[in-house]
Amino acid sequence: MTINAASIFKDVEKIRKNAPLVHNITNYVVMNTTANALLALGASPVMAHALPEVEEMAGIAGALVINIGTLSDAWIEAMFKAAKTAKARQIPIVIDPVGAGATQYRTRTARQLIQASAPSIIRGNGSEIMALCQQDQKTKGVDSTSASDQAIDSAKALALEFGCVVCVTGETDYIVSQKDIIQVKNGHAMMPRVTGLGCTATALCGAFAAINPDYSRAAAHAMAVMGIAGEMAGENAKGPGTLQVNFIDSLYQLSKTHIEELFNA
Amino acid sequence: MTINAASIFKDVEKIRKNAPLVHNITNYVVMNTTANALLALGASPVMAHALPEVEEMAGIAGALVINIGTLSDAWIEAMFKAAKTAKARQIPIVIDPVGAGATQYRTRTARQLIQASAPSIIRGNGSEIMALCQQDQKTKGVDSTSASDQAIDSAKALALEFGCVVCVTGETDYIVSQKDIIQVKNGHAMMPRVTGLGCTATALCGAFAAINPDYSRAAAHAMAVMGIAGEMAGENAKGPGTLQVNFIDSLYQLSKTHIEELFNA
Amino acid sequence: MTINAASIFKDVEKIRKNAPLVHNITNYVVMNTTANALLALGASPVMAHALPEVEEMAGIAGALVINIGTLSDAWIEAMFKAAKTAKARQIPIVIDPVGAGATQYRTRTARQLIQASAPSIIRGNGSEIMALCQQDQKTKGVDSTSASDQAIDSAKALALEFGCVVCVTGETDYIVSQKDIIQVKNGHAMMPRVTGLGCTATALCGAFAAINPDYSRAAAHAMAVMGIAGEMAGENAKGPGTLQVNFIDSLYQLSKTHIEELFNA
Repeated sequence: MTINAASIFKDVEKIRKNAPLVHNITNYVVMNTTANALLALGASPVMAHALPEVEEMAGIAGALVINIGTLSDAWIEAMFKAAKTAKARQIPIVIDPVGAGATQYRTRTARQLIQASAPSIIRGNGSEIMALCQQDQKTKGVDSTSASDQAIDSAKALALEFGCVVCVTGETDYIVSQKDIIQVKNGHAMMPRVTGLGCTATALCGAFAAINPDYSRAAAHAMAVMGIAGEMAGENAKGPGTLQVNFIDSLYQLSKTHIEELFNA
Repeated sequence: MTINAASIFKDVEKIRKNAPLVHNITNYVVMNTTANALLALGASPVMAHALPEVEEMAGIAGALVINIGTLSDAWIEAMFKAAKTAKARQIPIVIDPVGAGATQYRTRTARQLIQASAPSIIRGNGSEIMALCQQDQKTKGVDSTSASDQAIDSAKALALEFGCVVCVTGETDYIVSQKDIIQVKNGHAMMPRVTGLGCTATALCGAFAAINPDYSRAAAHAMAVMGIAGEMAGENAKGPGTLQVNFIDSLYQLSKTHIEELFNA
Repeated sequence: MTINAASIFKDVEKIRKNAPLVHNITNYVVMNTTANALLALGASPVMAHALPEVEEMAGIAGALVINIGTLSDAWIEAMFKAAKTAKARQIPIVIDPVGAGATQYRTRTARQLIQASAPSIIRGNGSEIMALCQQDQKTKGVDSTSASDQAIDSAKALALEFGCVVCVTGETDYIVSQKDIIQVKNGHAMMPRVTGLGCTATALCGAFAAINPDYSRAAAHAMAVMGIAGEMAGENAKGPGTLQVNFIDSLYQLSKTHIEELFNA
């Protein structure tokens, strides 16, 4: 399976036309920037985490995005409740295990959320994806010579265990499903210096999953759009400050021509 | 009653001179951007939501702004407590019923807050204002042929019921009081693509209400300043990213000449 | 004791090389902007406030930054817990008593945190530092003719009482220790119009303290970098919006030449 400029732009146009409601239960650091990214792309973001309303909000959303970046017990309860509704309604759930591996609390919570919600997509960096898998991946194959290889092995194991798409982002993004792996090689070297662009990648997965039921392609399209917008933004950036601002502009400006010229698989 | 460039700029100067303290109990998404908007305009923002301090903070503020964008039970309790102090001190209370109509929790909370606090100004978009009114406006007059007309009918009903100013924002802003309606027609088409500019409009209502006891004019001046700064910002914006940054700059730069040239009622 | 361009840049290079993990328990308003400032400078920020994980997170950090800007009881509990771990591990703790003096809750909490954690650095503006000291400084000497002088007296008293560095920021920054006072005179007049730059100054103290055990110099280096980046940012800023964006770019661009040309003690 492949993706290409035409398939990417088709989904972008669908988001712009349908403006899917993406319900985010996410961290305090990135709420403003992910809401702006979703709006700039053409989706409709909503942030809601209160127990008395998460079911109702997830009930009208096109996708649910759960991000544990600044988790706490009260928020975790809301994440499970919203996920239950989303699962019952069969709308896509996207999970970002921010900081899995850094503390047991994060690793444990991320695993429990994944087990309970059967997400459509998990998006994380290599170390987060490996942390999610540690209990199941005691023995690393000798072929796993690099951190990146190990992360792909972990992603495969997770994809198999939970029947979901696992998106490992880095210099090359790997979108791993039970059937295959799609690679996306867009992006800009300065992007890791802007806080929360990983969280934005996860939120965009939600927007694409809301309008494309092939979650592997949806995630790959999201990663391509992230990387292409990042490259556009980086061209005139003097640092991470202007990169962050330009990135939002680029999501808004993104045309078929941009994608055709810059997409790199 | 009308407003004009002179009356708008007089209030702007008063804010710049007095730097009124605006106490915000608002949502996580917009805290940074509304604080920056208030500072750029010349007001002094403070964010405080803890039960042990909201009375003391509301006790030294020039206005209290309550925004339910990411509400939860603990915050609602603080909102009521702060509102009680503000009401007792007769300082203006401005309420933003973010997402009223989207969930029952929001609609109910917004209505209860309005009933308990007798706000000076309610600011929302058309659908939020209509949602607040639904229980009282069972029958829509046949003249309400558009969503916008319906929103004005709802605003009138709310203004009458609670003796407050209701500010319905959209392409045209309607500032509805028991006595009359002021229209403001400034703004830029890209503004809805920046998250939280509605919340910023509400926060600016707080700043203007802190220095102008004619709350109808205060709200209208705030909407004119929002729209004019938005137009200034939009002129060189390449997308919602630069629009958001330029908007803050424009609030800071705003001169009498800008207002005279751009104000559109 | 003095600092100079060489000593400042040496620490900047060390941060860029070591990328120290700075654990922030901070306020909602500034989470995004302080994370971006730390990343732009070269440090690794993490925000975590949940009781079940703060000990583990503080256990792997190079510095702990506690900021009470939007405090509440649950967060205060986490602040004390994290501080206990940091203290036991002898990693530097930096405290920002945001709004001390505005409410008793803030003043009391800030004092209790300082007493319990024996911080390496306290950073605040003049009125916050004076508020922290009020109980101990009943009688002001007649030499304290200006607010700034009073703040320095309070800073001296705090430095003596808690054996820590007290950094009073304003037009001139005073870094007060038991032994001496370092002055830094960099900065831009528009900086107070950007929300949370004081909080950013505190976060940068954390980054510098993580790589320089001479906390007096660490704090002075942080203030010099803040001020120099602010001056660089201000040069092309059209208002506080572009200043905020340029400031992040400037932290990223900051070279030895910039420091040599702009440092002003």
